[in-house]
Amino acid sequence: MVDAAEVLAGDARGVARALTLVERGGREAEELLGALRGRLGHARTVGITGAPGVGKSTLVQALGIALLHGGARVAVLAVDPSSPFSGGALLGDRVRMPDFLERGGVVRSMATRGALGGLAVAASDALDVLDAAGFDWILVETVGVGQDEVEIAGEVETVVLVTVAGLGDDVQAAKAGVMEIADIFAVNKADRPGAEGQVAAIEGALAMAPAGSWRPPVIPTSATTGEGVARLATAIADHQRFLEGPGLREEARRRRARRRVERLVAALVRERIGGAQRAAFAAVLDEVGRGLLDPYAAARRLLRGIGEGEG
Amino acid sequence: MVDAAEVLAGDARGVARALTLVERGGREAEELLGALRGRLGHARTVGITGAPGVGKSTLVQALGIALLHGGARVAVLAVDPSSPFSGGALLGDRVRMPDFLERGGVVRSMATRGALGGLAVAASDALDVLDAAGFDWILVETVGVGQDEVEIAGEVETVVLVTVAGLGDDVQAAKAGVMEIADIFAVNKADRPGAEGQVAAIEGALAMAPAGSWRPPVIPTSATTGEGVARLATAIADHQRFLEGPGLREEARRRRARRRVERLVAALVRERIGGAQRAAFAAVLDEVGRGLLDPYAAARRLLRGIGEGEG
Repeated sequence: MVDAAEVLAGDARGVARALTLVERGGREAEELLGALRGRLGHARTVGITGAPGVGKSTLVQALGIALLHGGARVAVLAVDPSSPFSGGALLGDRVRMPDFLERGGVVRSMATRGALGGLAVAASDALDVLDAAGFDWILVETVGVGQDEVEIAGEVETVVLVTVAGLGDDVQAAKAGVMEIADIFAVNKADRPGAEGQVAAIEGALAMAPAGSWRPPVIPTSATTGEGVARLATAIADHQRFLEGPGLREEARRRRARRRVERLVAALVRERIGGAQRAAFAAVLDEVGRGLLDPYAAARRLLRGIGEGEG
Repeated sequence: MVDAAEVLAGDARGVARALTLVERGGREAEELLGALRGRLGHARTVGITGAPGVGKSTLVQALGIALLHGGARVAVLAVDPSSPFSGGALLGDRVRMPDFLERGGVVRSMATRGALGGLAVAASDALDVLDAAGFDWILVETVGVGQDEVEIAGEVETVVLVTVAGLGDDVQAAKAGVMEIADIFAVNKADRPGAEGQVAAIEGALAMAPAGSWRPPVIPTSATTGEGVARLATAIADHQRFLEGPGLREEARRRRARRRVERLVAALVRERIGGAQRAAFAAVLDEVGRGLLDPYAAARRLLRGIGEGEG
């Protein structure tokens, strides 16, 4: 059993059990999240995203340690399947951030996509659990290539996009949906040849974009030497201060709420097609499979049936 | 205007217009797809997926050329935002497969995620257009990291997962959902140190998996020297022959139909929340944003309203 009071008290084992529960999903998870409602909004949330191989995990660790130094409580949520925190089993490459852990940081990985609504729903619920547990900072590591991961980045207040020089793909991937969600750019492995050019290229691309009220800084970092990590932490704090502007945080919360509910509705629909009303839907799906019915027409027909099934 | 007859006749400009239409989505696109229904099922579809930087695009070109040699009509659909076919604008790095194009191959990129249901819906619709247009082979290039891309790979009959040696992240990403959908493995840049070890590692992982009726081959390739490309084309043909087994292709079509309809229903739900019934939903979403209502409770409440709105 998971006790909401234990989560709210910040009890480590209670929090761990709660995270397992929301990752799995289901009615009990829904009840827990309902019990935590009204106790949210303390945590500052930061997403760290970028292509595989740019060194996100090392940077997250360095950033986590920098934030801990101020006496804050810091949690890392790794939802990147290529992260050593989450994906290590195959290569025997388990959690590799001893420095952060020794200093009291908390790391949690999520890889399950089986829960209702998949990874984005589970990650969003996990953010609520960690927030209710009293963490001051939650760092969410995602891989910035797929839509799912872009969606998770949209769940946090501050998005850091990590790139490296010489990974042309990365800038291109950034273009297709990730670049516009970044509040801060980190050009990692800053000692590599071409890092300066990469900084200039991103600044150039940003200069062409319509100027918003927040101007994303581009920061050269080296997670291994520590270069730029303090500057990155400062940029995050700056962006958090920026969010204190009138109505900004409220607007962000409303946007996040909308995305979450949309995802959950879609997930419920999916569950219903495969579950309770399966028999009624099977005939329609069979017609589509045999090319006798349009998938669009089928979708509209099923949607009529679904609302009726929600008692 | 897009004419279904032009698509069915394989008219290049008609096909191009039809692809633009389904990428944008909307009622006219639905009507076109409805008109093409009953004229589908000729094309053999192959997905080529893998992390950014493994050399998918070059391999797709080499494979496309190999398939053209047999006199077949071949189309490439690039839905990888890091592909030079689709993402080149930022780096001034436009379509780079002149050899394939010169020999009569067709390339189309998709990057729009704005259509109803996003990239997976648009890609699936584009497959129907190219199929109806009479292509013998459709090669779909996706990046195998995000859920969206994994879903697109699920739309094709044969999935080739491309890896390279020395990209540890890749094997790990594979673990989290991509490896199990692969019918064929290509270890690209086979002249790199460690390529043999990578082949052995994948074969080892496969040996531990439950044996299905199809045993995925692991093929060293070098798109630049041409090594292994013919073997890859043969493996694809072998897998296509395997699919001729009793009921296999029908089962695959039913699965694909189900996924498509689920996605479309979810997309319609999303459209409704943001569109026609927006006012009715705004109050509920506002309550969630202010922490007064659970997102799960809100989703269940909205779902009841949505079915009623579908006339």
